[in-house]
Amino acid sequence: MNGKAKRRVTGAKAKEARAASGALAKAELRVRIRFGEEFQLGPGKADLLDAIDRTGSITASAKELGMSYRRAWLLIDEISRLFKRPVVDRAQGGAQGGGARLTDFGRALLAAYRRIEARTALAVREELAPFETDFIDL
Amino acid sequence: MNGKAKRRVTGAKAKEARAASGALAKAELRVRIRFGEEFQLGPGKADLLDAIDRTGSITASAKELGMSYRRAWLLIDEISRLFKRPVVDRAQGGAQGGGARLTDFGRALLAAYRRIEARTALAVREELAPFETDFIDL
Repeated sequence: MNGKAKRRVTGAKAKEARAASGALAKAELRVRIRFGEEFQLGPGKADLLDAIDRTGSITASAKELGMSYRRAWLLIDEISRLFKRPVVDRAQGGAQGGGARLTDFGRALLAAYRRIEARTALAVREELAPFETDFIDL
Repeated sequence: MNGKAKRRVTGAKAKEARAASGALAKAELRVRIRFGEEFQLGPGKADLLDAIDRTGSITASAKELGMSYRRAWLLIDEISRLFKRPVVDRAQGGAQGGGARLTDFGRALLAAYRRIEARTALAVREELAPFETDFIDL
């Protein structure tokens, strides 16, 4: 999943075709979970963890998501401080000058967030379906 | 529900007591649904519709939520333009100088959004439960 892609609330193919011009067919979700005043888990951090998992590099992930290295580092730092166990593992040295990868814990956490998104997308689809014809065409 | 209150991700009483110091017990949700570039349905508009339903007044609702009348009016305008049917009904004249109330459609829409929030809260609780002891204490 690329960083700009939000969770698209899509239905079955036939339904999609029928509602293609309606607003509901274009619905995108953002689920943000706040933990106290200081911590958040939302689509930005999830996409960053996703990118690190794919690229093995904070630099490459930041570039892919159109953010500065510093911004990416701060997001990783925030998510890391929320947990007692490491989320991202920074490899030392090597030919590539060190990389980064998700720990098994980080990968499980990301998967849980994606399941939350998917369940919310299903809820949106089901709960707003009765209003489908009430939306304007976008 | 007051405007400052986010959807709290609470569990059963016993579990809550056990996890009271953990971050998961303090989790709050924000579910935002985007329709194309221009429209959003999120906790801000939902809380405003809630307040209008309770107070029967845009002025009182804006005050309760700590926003300007103009801001409240713009939010109502945005949500109204997303649908073919009226969401808020502005009463004309009368002793109170005119009020506002949700239409049946607006009330049904708000209820659907609250159900989406509740289902997401359940998903958060269930999907993050395996990580409960991994969160720091907040």
